[in-house]
Amino acid sequence: MFGSDNQAPAHPRVLEAMLAANEGRCGSYGDDPWTARALDLLYAVFETRDLDAYFVGTGGAANGLALSALCPPWAAILAHPHAHVLEDEGNGPEFFTSGSRLVALGSTGLLVQPEDVEAAGTRHSPDFVHGLQPRAVTLTNLSETGQTYSPDHLRAISAVCKKQGWALHVDGARFANAVVGTGASAAALSWRAGVDALSFGLTKNGAVAAEILILFGAARSPAAAYLRKRAGQLFSKHRYLTAQAVAMLEGDLWLELAGHANQMAHDLGERFERAGASLAAPVMGNEVFVRLNTSKVSALQAAGVSFYPWATLGEDVYRFVASWQTTTEAVDTVASALV
Amino acid sequence: MFGSDNQAPAHPRVLEAMLAANEGRCGSYGDDPWTARALDLLYAVFETRDLDAYFVGTGGAANGLALSALCPPWAAILAHPHAHVLEDEGNGPEFFTSGSRLVALGSTGLLVQPEDVEAAGTRHSPDFVHGLQPRAVTLTNLSETGQTYSPDHLRAISAVCKKQGWALHVDGARFANAVVGTGASAAALSWRAGVDALSFGLTKNGAVAAEILILFGAARSPAAAYLRKRAGQLFSKHRYLTAQAVAMLEGDLWLELAGHANQMAHDLGERFERAGASLAAPVMGNEVFVRLNTSKVSALQAAGVSFYPWATLGEDVYRFVASWQTTTEAVDTVASALV
Amino acid sequence: MFGSDNQAPAHPRVLEAMLAANEGRCGSYGDDPWTARALDLLYAVFETRDLDAYFVGTGGAANGLALSALCPPWAAILAHPHAHVLEDEGNGPEFFTSGSRLVALGSTGLLVQPEDVEAAGTRHSPDFVHGLQPRAVTLTNLSETGQTYSPDHLRAISAVCKKQGWALHVDGARFANAVVGTGASAAALSWRAGVDALSFGLTKNGAVAAEILILFGAARSPAAAYLRKRAGQLFSKHRYLTAQAVAMLEGDLWLELAGHANQMAHDLGERFERAGASLAAPVMGNEVFVRLNTSKVSALQAAGVSFYPWATLGEDVYRFVASWQTTTEAVDTVASALV
Amino acid sequence: MFGSDNQAPAHPRVLEAMLAANEGRCGSYGDDPWTARALDLLYAVFETRDLDAYFVGTGGAANGLALSALCPPWAAILAHPHAHVLEDEGNGPEFFTSGSRLVALGSTGLLVQPEDVEAAGTRHSPDFVHGLQPRAVTLTNLSETGQTYSPDHLRAISAVCKKQGWALHVDGARFANAVVGTGASAAALSWRAGVDALSFGLTKNGAVAAEILILFGAARSPAAAYLRKRAGQLFSKHRYLTAQAVAMLEGDLWLELAGHANQMAHDLGERFERAGASLAAPVMGNEVFVRLNTSKVSALQAAGVSFYPWATLGEDVYRFVASWQTTTEAVDTVASALV
Repeated sequence: MFGSDNQAPAHPRVLEAMLAANEGRCGSYGDDPWTARALDLLYAVFETRDLDAYFVGTGGAANGLALSALCPPWAAILAHPHAHVLEDEGNGPEFFTSGSRLVALGSTGLLVQPEDVEAAGTRHSPDFVHGLQPRAVTLTNLSETGQTYSPDHLRAISAVCKKQGWALHVDGARFANAVVGTGASAAALSWRAGVDALSFGLTKNGAVAAEILILFGAARSPAAAYLRKRAGQLFSKHRYLTAQAVAMLEGDLWLELAGHANQMAHDLGERFERAGASLAAPVMGNEVFVRLNTSKVSALQAAGVSFYPWATLGEDVYRFVASWQTTTEAVDTVASALV
Repeated sequence: MFGSDNQAPAHPRVLEAMLAANEGRCGSYGDDPWTARALDLLYAVFETRDLDAYFVGTGGAANGLALSALCPPWAAILAHPHAHVLEDEGNGPEFFTSGSRLVALGSTGLLVQPEDVEAAGTRHSPDFVHGLQPRAVTLTNLSETGQTYSPDHLRAISAVCKKQGWALHVDGARFANAVVGTGASAAALSWRAGVDALSFGLTKNGAVAAEILILFGAARSPAAAYLRKRAGQLFSKHRYLTAQAVAMLEGDLWLELAGHANQMAHDLGERFERAGASLAAPVMGNEVFVRLNTSKVSALQAAGVSFYPWATLGEDVYRFVASWQTTTEAVDTVASALV
Repeated sequence: MFGSDNQAPAHPRVLEAMLAANEGRCGSYGDDPWTARALDLLYAVFETRDLDAYFVGTGGAANGLALSALCPPWAAILAHPHAHVLEDEGNGPEFFTSGSRLVALGSTGLLVQPEDVEAAGTRHSPDFVHGLQPRAVTLTNLSETGQTYSPDHLRAISAVCKKQGWALHVDGARFANAVVGTGASAAALSWRAGVDALSFGLTKNGAVAAEILILFGAARSPAAAYLRKRAGQLFSKHRYLTAQAVAMLEGDLWLELAGHANQMAHDLGERFERAGASLAAPVMGNEVFVRLNTSKVSALQAAGVSFYPWATLGEDVYRFVASWQTTTEAVDTVASALV
Repeated sequence: MFGSDNQAPAHPRVLEAMLAANEGRCGSYGDDPWTARALDLLYAVFETRDLDAYFVGTGGAANGLALSALCPPWAAILAHPHAHVLEDEGNGPEFFTSGSRLVALGSTGLLVQPEDVEAAGTRHSPDFVHGLQPRAVTLTNLSETGQTYSPDHLRAISAVCKKQGWALHVDGARFANAVVGTGASAAALSWRAGVDALSFGLTKNGAVAAEILILFGAARSPAAAYLRKRAGQLFSKHRYLTAQAVAMLEGDLWLELAGHANQMAHDLGERFERAGASLAAPVMGNEVFVRLNTSKVSALQAAGVSFYPWATLGEDVYRFVASWQTTTEAVDTVASALV
């Protein structure tokens, strides 16, 4: 029950919104009231109208399109060594960008540090035509190991990027958990911190399948519309995509759901520590990474708890992900099994 | 009300199925009972288990992935001069195939004829390294102007393809309408006629967003799974995609809905002819292409009827598309406006 | 002996220049005196220093790199229906541009007319996201059938391009023949007429293998250097590439050689006409396209004359290409065989 | 004078051969006697006719085409962390392969070890659709730091590759130096050791610009011809490319030149050691990597010796490359400066 947040169903209000949208005819490809409403809600959430939003079906598509909107085909893109775009999307980024190479930064910690980006700037030079030409940095917030980038942290990185002439993208598959985790606003964690493009994920947080590529300010470009179309990511019955976004954003359901998931992860982390299992990474969102010996692993499996090993943090580390649907009982089940 | 079938909502049973699937946890990325059930239904519908099915979000993605699974990047792909893949997907096919050029066949009629493909075989030679190297033919069934390819027609084309060593793909965004229109089985209109890959569309016919790339027999390849993943078309909460397919295929809802749409188009065509408007193409599915003078166009618009001009068939030709939701009243509205 | 100008050897002065360059060490990748000298000669020939020149090995590479420097991957490129880039480079343009589709203009004559480009502007719209998005027009001067675009003609086309926001590229595999044929200057046939990028070919005109991609004015971009490098077109022992250019440009050898070839073609055309064979296209450079009956074809073949059929101008049309090495005797041989 | 072997001129016999080829007309694009002769010489050198050879202009092109012939666009390619394809060709491999990602193996030594490849096989799984899918390993022989892979070493690596279903490519920009360095035959260092594709470089060893992509046995494929053409690497006046190859291969000039360069490097290495400068890597070909303090660096620069720092081996490491033209006097100059 802690395998991944994408194993959870959608929140009932999302399905209700789709059902409510399932009435009568409307324009296709985004020419409909749900899309207009979703856009208005995004303006409110991000406190600006200086953005373009592209609704797509998966996080991989949002990331790929973001990078292809920011980077020419001859460029390179820098990411944390364990970034999702490096490890879990096949060679999707190369596909979407027509050949920009994904390159691991020298980051040794859980998060990319401004110094890592600075070092890459030293290593790669626009004057050395034989070498890779970075043009973008991509971060994941909430990170792959469950930590948050704060607005200050993002600003420090974007300052290095600006100096280099590089764009900054944030993979926000769990952006809601980062917003709740930092207590910062969506704006503070994006354009106000110098982020050019955000993959704003709603699926893991409670939608059926709805991800939003947002381009801010100077990064806005008509090219993105053509890139989305040619990638087969412009949905014809577009209302069902944006009805999901409306349901999630209206009344801040997205924050409520992420808040619950974060709380469950926090509680779970505490229970692990109380049971003598040490955390492999601080719990700052809805994910818990914990060191478990084989007897504890067996006990949890026997109790029907699902979870995955996470080798990048160590051979004895396991990941537990809480979702909007995670219950106190599920946390108790884990705790009981650990005793 | 006749603008396009993708302006219609989804059929209620599709939404009900999604709602029913919205219970409890399940595996992501296709490891769920709905996907297994959808696959079983496809085996039954196509009367074979010698197929692989890839569920994706849009028809453009299904077409692009099909072509990329069939064609190497150095190849060319042949299509009817007014094919959707040539006219309405940006340069999506080039994107998905990494550069295979889409080339128009010399077809002058509404459908591609075996002779057109034969002629292309004469024009292009594998020995002329400077020239384009066709490796696939793609047809649209139901065609862009509403006609069907019969099993015999497909077989004649696939025979030419086999001789050339070319693959045959069918863009079946309105495959259901072709099945009903020809009275042939899904198998007879696909693998039994030598079709290697089919984009089996459910969206226009009543789903929310569900398209299926099917590879038959020798065209099956593990590569397709990697191609889908890297294209951002592997949905995490996969159950909602396949629950739609289950709803459409179970009890032959897909044929019932297409049958209704075809009937409405047939009736509409008759009304046009009775009113003295000549059809620009035979009605064989759910689309009507009719010549209208400006006064009739104005009268229809005044009556609130929506429809689009279709310049490839003539400056005075207009397209009307019926959907599963089209009512006899809507047909009557058109007929009345024409008087 | 009239098969193609690329069947001729290189001019002795080109080989002499390479031999002269074969002394001692020098910087690689263009950091050498021959490259500096070639660049100076280009400034003089084109009467401007507002250009960047990239030396590459083949015309296909120069064209592909030019288009990739001018067009984003989501775009389309417009060309004459019988353009070399459409017919004779495989799908090279799609490869170099990462998917921009090559599309034939509606030109029915031997040259692209401004109206053809204007019509394409009407047909394709940036607002129709489903449709192709042209971003460049590419012309061939000398054209595939041996005609020249005059400065006025080019200016008229570039004016339409500018209005549309499209770039203008000229494939100048036989640019020297066009310069001599029109009597216009290199500048008048390029940047002064609104040409953004020129593939300036030296190989057919007498070099071993030396083609130059020139970007003018606003089209200059550091991206081109990275594009050339990643395409494997940055030669390490660069001096041998640019020594060829120096030999061809110094003392206007390039114009002398093209002048000779044009004269031979002109003479050959006259002989054909005197022998009662009608020209299929006006002789304006170094190519002759002529209608021949089978007995004349046989007589020429018997006399050891080599030439190719040119089906795009008619089943009975044959192409004869003169080169810098073509002799009056060779022309006489043809004339004698025709009697 | 030790900056790089590509700063040396071509060997006189190469230019003589080009000059000798500069007579009369011949077929273009490889339909000429020089190409036929070069192919025969390759059959002899590699002791087999079960190979296809593609002559191209640069090493980057040979490598890119090799990888695109061996790998589908959805794949990954594994290389030593400091491989030329990773560090010095921009994102060329991604360009040529349409998106295959270049990935560094975990090699910590100067050469890739079979265990490194084995470990990659464990790390990446064809069953994990989200992960990278390696399909080829590429080695450099002579390596980037001047070492040779022996036939046994290659066979051990190819055995792991075969087990995984991966192809094996060798970047042989300095293949001749490896052949001489190991004392093994060209066949023993390629197909007999399980190598599928070889970039056989002649340029650094004494040609003007001539690199050969060789596909062996089961890796032979007509696709390579189309890939070369579309990449702008099929030279029209092909004789000048293959005349170079003939000159280099005839009478084993290629081995003679590499033998001299290797000897000069060997002598230089000895002199360094005698002067108390320690080698950073064993001298096995024509490259010397040596640790130098700043006073020695200054002394060498003052003596007019050119060379480059090589940071991947250490901050105080410098690379010296000998060529066919390196003289004993040049070695003496270095030795004298070190005293």
